Amino acid sequence: MTNTNDTICAIATAPGGAIGTIRISGPEAIAITGRIFTPANGKPLAERPPYTLTFGQIRSSEGAIIDEVLVSLFRGPHSYTGEDSTEISCHGSSYILQQVMQLLIQNGCRAALPGEYTQRAFLNGKMDLSQAEAVADLIASTSAATHRMAMNQMRGGFSRELSALREQLLHLTSLMELELDFSDHEELEFADRTELEKIARQIESVISHLVQTFSVGNALKNGVPVAIVGETNAGKSTLLNALLNEERAIVSDIHGTTRDVIEDTMNLGGITFRFIDTAGIRETTDTIESLGIERSFQKLDQADIVLWVIDATQANEQYQQLAEKILPRCEDKHLIIVLNKADLLDAANEDVQKRMLSVLANQPQKTYVITLSAKHKEGITILQKKLVDFAALPDLSQNDVVVSNIRHYEALSHALESIHRVQDEMNMGLSGDFVSQDLRECLFHLAEITGGEITTDEVLGNIFRNFCIGK
Amino acid sequence: MTNTNDTICAIATAPGGAIGTIRISGPEAIAITGRIFTPANGKPLAERPPYTLTFGQIRSSEGAIIDEVLVSLFRGPHSYTGEDSTEISCHGSSYILQQVMQLLIQNGCRAALPGEYTQRAFLNGKMDLSQAEAVADLIASTSAATHRMAMNQMRGGFSRELSALREQLLHLTSLMELELDFSDHEELEFADRTELEKIARQIESVISHLVQTFSVGNALKNGVPVAIVGETNAGKSTLLNALLNEERAIVSDIHGTTRDVIEDTMNLGGITFRFIDTAGIRETTDTIESLGIERSFQKLDQADIVLWVIDATQANEQYQQLAEKILPRCEDKHLIIVLNKADLLDAANEDVQKRMLSVLANQPQKTYVITLSAKHKEGITILQKKLVDFAALPDLSQNDVVVSNIRHYEALSHALESIHRVQDEMNMGLSGDFVSQDLRECLFHLAEITGGEITTDEVLGNIFRNFCIGK
Repeated sequence: MTNTNDTICAIATAPGGAIGTIRISGPEAIAITGRIFTPANGKPLAERPPYTLTFGQIRSSEGAIIDEVLVSLFRGPHSYTGEDSTEISCHGSSYILQQVMQLLIQNGCRAALPGEYTQRAFLNGKMDLSQAEAVADLIASTSAATHRMAMNQMRGGFSRELSALREQLLHLTSLMELELDFSDHEELEFADRTELEKIARQIESVISHLVQTFSVGNALKNGVPVAIVGETNAGKSTLLNALLNEERAIVSDIHGTTRDVIEDTMNLGGITFRFIDTAGIRETTDTIESLGIERSFQKLDQADIVLWVIDATQANEQYQQLAEKILPRCEDKHLIIVLNKADLLDAANEDVQKRMLSVLANQPQKTYVITLSAKHKEGITILQKKLVDFAALPDLSQNDVVVSNIRHYEALSHALESIHRVQDEMNMGLSGDFVSQDLRECLFHLAEITGGEITTDEVLGNIFRNFCIGK
Repeated sequence: MTNTNDTICAIATAPGGAIGTIRISGPEAIAITGRIFTPANGKPLAERPPYTLTFGQIRSSEGAIIDEVLVSLFRGPHSYTGEDSTEISCHGSSYILQQVMQLLIQNGCRAALPGEYTQRAFLNGKMDLSQAEAVADLIASTSAATHRMAMNQMRGGFSRELSALREQLLHLTSLMELELDFSDHEELEFADRTELEKIARQIESVISHLVQTFSVGNALKNGVPVAIVGETNAGKSTLLNALLNEERAIVSDIHGTTRDVIEDTMNLGGITFRFIDTAGIRETTDTIESLGIERSFQKLDQADIVLWVIDATQANEQYQQLAEKILPRCEDKHLIIVLNKADLLDAANEDVQKRMLSVLANQPQKTYVITLSAKHKEGITILQKKLVDFAALPDLSQNDVVVSNIRHYEALSHALESIHRVQDEMNMGLSGDFVSQDLRECLFHLAEITGGEITTDEVLGNIFRNFCIGK
């Protein structure tokens, strides 16, 4: 674990502004700042009360004036990190900021790692892990919805929900253990089991709801995932370009957000769409190529909306493919069938749309068939409107808890599996010690989210390395 | 003039950092901030003492939490602008910063113009105009030398020098007027004139020195101007590329610095060189083309160092050109004659360097002749070393006053002309009222530098529009 006995410093503002701020935190923060700072009123910094600003000069060891600055003073535990801290507000020159950083390091500071201030805040008990993660999301927030999710999480909305769950789980565990103690009293056991099953159902329901919010949370944070699939000659690229060209708005890659693959994104009606690249799909007997196609189908699984692009002039060959390969994979998704190359349709295949709709009849999912020409950009705005309809995301209120972090989603999914096992074991009438084991596992997975004694250095490293410097 | 009765707000940090700061200044600064800010301790912001930090929330009019922030409080005249001011330190999300700005504007603030905080500081007597200009230079400073010049100017080093000059000029003026009053006592006049001429000489010497520092100040701030001239086929572009490729370090175009034309710059041995583009020069009888060539020669006048590039295999045609056209234009410059295409030299023209040196013999300026091949990058590092030698800039001490602002240079040049007229008039024995007129003009030009009653809106506009927003 990163040493927290030393004093760290970092530039917390982006280069190029009127003001630049350097943060210092740790046991020697005030002493080190005091060594390079000459207050205008002559009173040593260490004698100033916390939550004050002091005007003065940063001077080099040779006495040269580096800048005239304001120093903010905080004393632990009443600071962001929970430690003694200062903030030096300089003129926003990169040269000045680098000079001040150099002086701080010469006087005993260490340059902070990304996210190290927030990591210290977590380690010092100022916030739990999910709140710490929300800080990075808050800084990266670019819309009302992402801002609201992050703000609620940072202020502990999610933590409170998890804390209530934990209470219920502990209650259930203690009841199970009580049952164990009295396991020879058969009549007692049966009375408890009904009650226990009810509590387990409540817990399952809350966790299950949280897991389900991830599709919304993830769509808000990273964009609604849309897969464009179809044969290589169906015009997928032309369609994607037609969609993007009309209203291209690249969601910028903001520091502190993590996204392994940069995909094409587009903003329509306030909603971000993220297009998932898939290889062309076609019938083949070649094993290697089949593997590639299988991977394309797997990508389909990540999508909320599937755009199945068909060359309308060749539609006859597709009905079977649709029924056998696509529909079974799209059961919980929205499916839009794009009959492309409408400009090339002749009388012989004018009924493709009708036939396609008949294949889709009685399908459970939301489907839509559109005939368009990507090449001539005809029908594109209708398609865009349909994407917005299908993506319709709920309007979040300030207190809605929405899971948007993949780490939280995974932990909740594991917790859900555990509680499902608990319910199965109860149904099978297994003894209390079996059930207790899975209850403890469920508790463990929930605790992973907020951190605590069980958090490993590796987990912390993964979380905080995606933060920006100075936070 | 910009209204200073309203309250202004601006984001003072660059987008993309961990922390973002919004500055508010004006009579309603504390009241407006208090309207959108809920302090965590419940105590209204207006009741907090100045130079304190308060933690709390920024809330929308609907009560939604926009961010958890720290608010710094300042009360005029003890603030940067001299007015009541606050600074809101938020999480560095552009979305949050925009929301806070919107709330401030809804509550009565106006978005600040570039440099408006510093302009208010000037108008409220917190600094003079040359100090205000130094703030922008300080933010744009990228090296020890530019930082030192700006810091000294911001801290009033230049202003003190001007103030001393002003004292001397006023003293001289009052003596002149005394002389006028006693103009019928001839013996008194002659006694005074010697003394007056001595004072005028001292003033001239100080102004003249300041004017001369501009070549150093300008070279430090904008780069040492180097003109590459020569015939179109001499290899000027190849030479420039060879110079730049080796150690290219583009001096970035920093907000708040003004440079009309972006030229190629290069950093060598800590010195920035700025290459002035000139058209090819060749003998012509065409009037239009002659005009273009004349413009090339004019650009030569801006240079401290002239690189005269010659095709060494054609050098015989150049001796006359050098003697007649180049040398007369380079009297106060460093001249480097580059005999390019050394790889193509044969026995017949092996003595070009020697002949060139004989033309240069007995020339007053610093000259150097180098034979190289730009194409094969042979001799480039020797040329670079020579550039550094010729550019050798003085090592500034913390208290050296160096003029680096073209506006100041122009005002000082006018002041110098006025004091020269004063001296001429004294030498001619003209009467005191003539002399007084020019003394007042000299005072006027010096006052232009620091501002004062005489500063027009246009001058202020020109100065502050080059500042960055939030400063």
